[in-house]
Amino acid sequence: MNCMVAQSGGPTVAINASLAGVLEMNRKTNHFSIVYGAINGIIGVLEERFLNLSEKMENDASFTKRLIHSPAMYLGSCRYKLPKGDEGQEKYQEIFKVFEKLEINTFFYIGGNDSMDTVDKLSQYAKAHALPVKIIGIPKTIDNDLVKIDHTPGFGSAAKYVAASVREVAMDAYIYAVKSVTIVEIMGRDAGWLTAASALARTKHSPAPDLIYLPEVPFDLDKCIQDTRSLLEGKNTVVIAMSEGIRDKNGDYISTADSASDIFGHNHLSGAGKTLEGLLKNALQVKVRSIEINVLQRAAAHMASETDLMESELLGENAFSLAMEGKTGLMSILTRESRNPYKVAYSSWPVSEIANQVKSVPREWINEDGNDVTKEMVDYLNPLIQGEPDVPYVDGLPDYLPVEHLYPNR
Amino acid sequence: MNCMVAQSGGPTVAINASLAGVLEMNRKTNHFSIVYGAINGIIGVLEERFLNLSEKMENDASFTKRLIHSPAMYLGSCRYKLPKGDEGQEKYQEIFKVFEKLEINTFFYIGGNDSMDTVDKLSQYAKAHALPVKIIGIPKTIDNDLVKIDHTPGFGSAAKYVAASVREVAMDAYIYAVKSVTIVEIMGRDAGWLTAASALARTKHSPAPDLIYLPEVPFDLDKCIQDTRSLLEGKNTVVIAMSEGIRDKNGDYISTADSASDIFGHNHLSGAGKTLEGLLKNALQVKVRSIEINVLQRAAAHMASETDLMESELLGENAFSLAMEGKTGLMSILTRESRNPYKVAYSSWPVSEIANQVKSVPREWINEDGNDVTKEMVDYLNPLIQGEPDVPYVDGLPDYLPVEHLYPNR
Repeated sequence: MNCMVAQSGGPTVAINASLAGVLEMNRKTNHFSIVYGAINGIIGVLEERFLNLSEKMENDASFTKRLIHSPAMYLGSCRYKLPKGDEGQEKYQEIFKVFEKLEINTFFYIGGNDSMDTVDKLSQYAKAHALPVKIIGIPKTIDNDLVKIDHTPGFGSAAKYVAASVREVAMDAYIYAVKSVTIVEIMGRDAGWLTAASALARTKHSPAPDLIYLPEVPFDLDKCIQDTRSLLEGKNTVVIAMSEGIRDKNGDYISTADSASDIFGHNHLSGAGKTLEGLLKNALQVKVRSIEINVLQRAAAHMASETDLMESELLGENAFSLAMEGKTGLMSILTRESRNPYKVAYSSWPVSEIANQVKSVPREWINEDGNDVTKEMVDYLNPLIQGEPDVPYVDGLPDYLPVEHLYPNR
Repeated sequence: MNCMVAQSGGPTVAINASLAGVLEMNRKTNHFSIVYGAINGIIGVLEERFLNLSEKMENDASFTKRLIHSPAMYLGSCRYKLPKGDEGQEKYQEIFKVFEKLEINTFFYIGGNDSMDTVDKLSQYAKAHALPVKIIGIPKTIDNDLVKIDHTPGFGSAAKYVAASVREVAMDAYIYAVKSVTIVEIMGRDAGWLTAASALARTKHSPAPDLIYLPEVPFDLDKCIQDTRSLLEGKNTVVIAMSEGIRDKNGDYISTADSASDIFGHNHLSGAGKTLEGLLKNALQVKVRSIEINVLQRAAAHMASETDLMESELLGENAFSLAMEGKTGLMSILTRESRNPYKVAYSSWPVSEIANQVKSVPREWINEDGNDVTKEMVDYLNPLIQGEPDVPYVDGLPDYLPVEHLYPNR
C-alpha cells in the first residue's frame, strides 16, 4: 500500500516543509511502503511522471532536513483545473487508473484554493465510484486567503521577507536630505494580507511604511496624494506599501485606470507601483521611486520564518494522520487557540467548504481612512514571522536541494 | 584634537562597518578626544549638522556591533561635488572654518569615486593653504569600480545577495513544465562586476543564469535571441542575468533603442529588463518575465558577506592608522596577496589617482561570445561572498540601529 504527494499553484518557501512532514510521518509509522511524488502536480499523475521519495530518503539521510529549507516546489507545479465530474470522466478514469496501478491508498495534494478544488473533485469522484483512494489537501499560499484556517503555510515566511525588505528599503530611503516618496509594491491581487505585513517593518524610531493600501478598500488617488503631501510637510521621507491589486471605487486596477494611461499610455508595461509612482511624481513634484518586491517574496528561503516552516511540517504530519484514520475529502488545518501566548491546534475541515473561496482582510482590521492596518492586524501577524531557521550555507550561499528532475532536456 | 567622519554616495551594507572601524580604533588608541559624524556628507559639514559618535559609543556598549550590521548609511549621504579649487574658494573656507572650530585633525570620507574627488580636492586645498587637517578616503561601492583596490567594501555583500537571489529566482522558475525565460536585471550602469556575481548562483545541478550580459560588451539583440532560442530547444527554463547598463554597439542603452520604443513607446517607464522582456516575448513567443533586483541588493544587511563586513571594518581601521601616521590625500586600500588561500593586505594609494576613474571588467574575464564570464572571474568573486554574519534579530526581524537623526521633522 503506497501513497502519493503532489504540489500545485504558486510556490512558497514552506511548501516543501509540508512534504517533509508527510515523509517524516511515514518514516516513523511505516504506514505506506512507498511515498511517490508526482512531478508537476496532477499533470504529473496523468503523464505518469513520478519520483520514489522513499528511495530518496533512504539514499540521503539529510533529505527531509534539506527539503524543509529549500524554496519553491521540489515536485514542481502546474496550473490545471480538472473538468467538472460529469464532463471529463476520462480524465478521472485515467487518474484513478494510475492510482490503482501504483497501489495508491492516499493522494496528498499541497496547494491553494485551486488545488483544493482538485482535492474536492477527486474525493467526490472516488466516493461516487466507491474507489478506495483517500484524497487529502494540505494548504499553502503566500496570499493567506484560504478560509477555515487561521493562516496558511508559506504566508508567515513571505510576511517576514516583506517586513524585512520594507525595513531595509526604508533605511535606504532615509539617507538623503531631500523630499522623497518610496513605493513598495507587494504581491496579493485580491487579498491584502501580505501587504498588511509591511506594518511589521515599523520600529519605535521608524514609522515606515507611512501608508498602507490593501485591495479590500477602494483606492482613492486624491486622498493618497493629499495624505502623502501632508506627510511630506512634516518630514523628508514617505514610504508607501501597496498591494499590486489595489483598485479604484469602480473596481478597476489603478494600472489600467484612465488617469494613468493618459499620462503614460502602454499600461501593459507598468504595474501598480510604477503607475502610482508616475501619478505621485506628477502631483507632488518630488522624487518618487517604486520598488516591486518580486518573486523573492515567495522564494527567499534564506529569510523564512521558523514558525512557518514548523507549522507547515506539522500540517503535513497532520494530513498524514488523517489518512491513517481513513479520512478523505479533508484539508489539514490549524486554528489559533490562544493569541498570547501564541498557540495553535491542528485539525481538519471538509475541503468542499474551502475550495474556490477567498478570505479577505476584514474591514475592521483596516483603519477608517483606508490607509493603514489596525493594531489587531499587527497582533495577528506578529507571531507568524517569529524565529530564524538554520539555513544551511555552502560556499557563501544557501544550499538548496537540487531539482534536476524538474528540468530534464525535453 | 578631534576627527570627523562622513559618508557619501550610494548606500552599501558594509559602509557602516568602515565607520565602526574608525570608532573602534579610537577606542583602542584614544588618539582623538571626540569622533564627530557629519550628517549627510560634506553638506552636513557645511550646514554644521553633527553627531558626537564618541558619546554614542559611551552610552551604548553595543553601538559599533550594531553599526556593523546596519545597512545604508548611519550618517546619511549626499550627492555633492565640490567646485574646483580656484572657483569655489568660499566653500572650502567654510569647510575648513568648521574643521578649525571643532578642532578637527583628520576628516575621513567614506564613499565611491565621486567622494574620492572630494577627498582629493580637500586635501589639495589643505596643502595649498598649509592647513593642518588631514583628509583620508575610505572606499565603498557595490559597483566595485574603484581603481587601485582589489575590490571595494560593499561589493561582496551585494554580490552575495545577487547570487542568492538569482539562485532563488531560478528555483521559482523551474517549477512549471512550460518554456519560459526569466530575466534578472542587476545594478551597475557602467561596470558589470555585480552582474558577473550572478554566476556564483550556479550549482552542479543548476546552470542558472544561462546567459550573462555585462555593459563592457556591446549587447547584440539578435545573438541574444538566437542564444535563448537554442537553449530553449534543449530545456524549458532559461535564466538571463543582465546589467541595467547594457548598451548596443552604438553605445545606446537598450531601453531607449529604437527597436524597443517601436514596440512599447514611453521608454521612461521601462528599464533594461522590461525592455528585453518585451523583445524576447515578441521574438520567441514564450512566457518571459523580468525581475529587477532593486535597492535591496545594496540594503539587504541580513544577507551580508562576513568577509566583506570584516574587510570594510579593517579598511576603516587602516584609514585611522594612516591618520595617526600623519598621512593625507590617501585612500585606504586592500590588495590581494594570494588567491588560494585568499589573503589580502591593507595599504594606501594617492586618492588623486583614484578619484573619477572607473574600473571596468577586463574583456578577458568575459567569454568570447560576450554572454558569460570566465572561470577566472568566478575565482576572483568567490572569496568575497564567504561567511554569514551573526545578524541580530528582534521579534522576527533584523534589528538595525535607529537613524532618527536622519529624519528630523523639517
